[in-house]
Amino acid sequence: MTVKTMDELFLDGLKDMYYAEKQILKSLPKMARKASSKELSAAFEDHQKETEGQIERLEQVFEGLGKAARGKKCDAIEGLIDEAKEKMEDVEDKAVLDAGLLADAQAVEHYEIARYGTLVEWAKLLGHGDAAKLLKANLDEEEATDKKLNGLARSQVNKTAMAA
Amino acid sequence: MTVKTMDELFLDGLKDMYYAEKQILKSLPKMARKASSKELSAAFEDHQKETEGQIERLEQVFEGLGKAARGKKCDAIEGLIDEAKEKMEDVEDKAVLDAGLLADAQAVEHYEIARYGTLVEWAKLLGHGDAAKLLKANLDEEEATDKKLNGLARSQVNKTAMAA
Repeated sequence: MTVKTMDELFLDGLKDMYYAEKQILKSLPKMARKASSKELSAAFEDHQKETEGQIERLEQVFEGLGKAARGKKCDAIEGLIDEAKEKMEDVEDKAVLDAGLLADAQAVEHYEIARYGTLVEWAKLLGHGDAAKLLKANLDEEEATDKKLNGLARSQVNKTAMAA
Repeated sequence: MTVKTMDELFLDGLKDMYYAEKQILKSLPKMARKASSKELSAAFEDHQKETEGQIERLEQVFEGLGKAARGKKCDAIEGLIDEAKEKMEDVEDKAVLDAGLLADAQAVEHYEIARYGTLVEWAKLLGHGDAAKLLKANLDEEEATDKKLNGLARSQVNKTAMAA
């Protein structure tokens, strides 16, 4: 594939995130099952529902542009999710695993924050006002999830893990 | 490898970042050469120097813990850097490539912000005060770089790319 314009680069970025969100949606139930902290497990489940809504918003963005909603393999999210999978295999203590999974989830959130931040800017400059609003809604949710996870790490998960 | 304690998970995270910083150090000169905007190219070169200092700080952290400075393959950074490599191959227009490379660099910064944020918290809880300070210095630099790139995107790179 060759990219020549910002419209094409923007579409490429949307496909990257569409693929990423679908991979995240697949991995969240596993993370929720593996988490021992009830609060962490619930946070993963909540984010699973949110992710479904984010995928729908991305589909609305594609539709508004008159393009088919299609993903494109995103190496970054594959790598990020692989790190969480590795932890599920390598970390023996349950509380320590919780701390690790929470950290890996925050790394995923930060990937999404970076990408949606860029896509919102590009959508505005390209005159895609509706797309910008939908992408901003996803960005806001990712930022809120990252903050929620941060609070959970500080209030509970890290402390419990330290006692392991 | 099996991880049983937070000390081991912390060490694992340090190795992940040591590997990541070394991969970033390798890719920045290529990105600086490929960037057409002088300001973007200079930003990549500046960050290359900063990255060298960050690697040294990580080595000090390992030393303080009495551990050998050793990296561990980090799938996430491999994936993130692969996305930038793909852009260098796929994007034909120079100004559009600049916008893409800048966005990919921000995704890398956000990965580092997430990881250093976690490592600072863990270092504090584990009583590694010196390590926490060194890791916080790296975190602050990554956040400043992300902001600098954001400013460059808005003031110049994205606008030039839109005209392509």
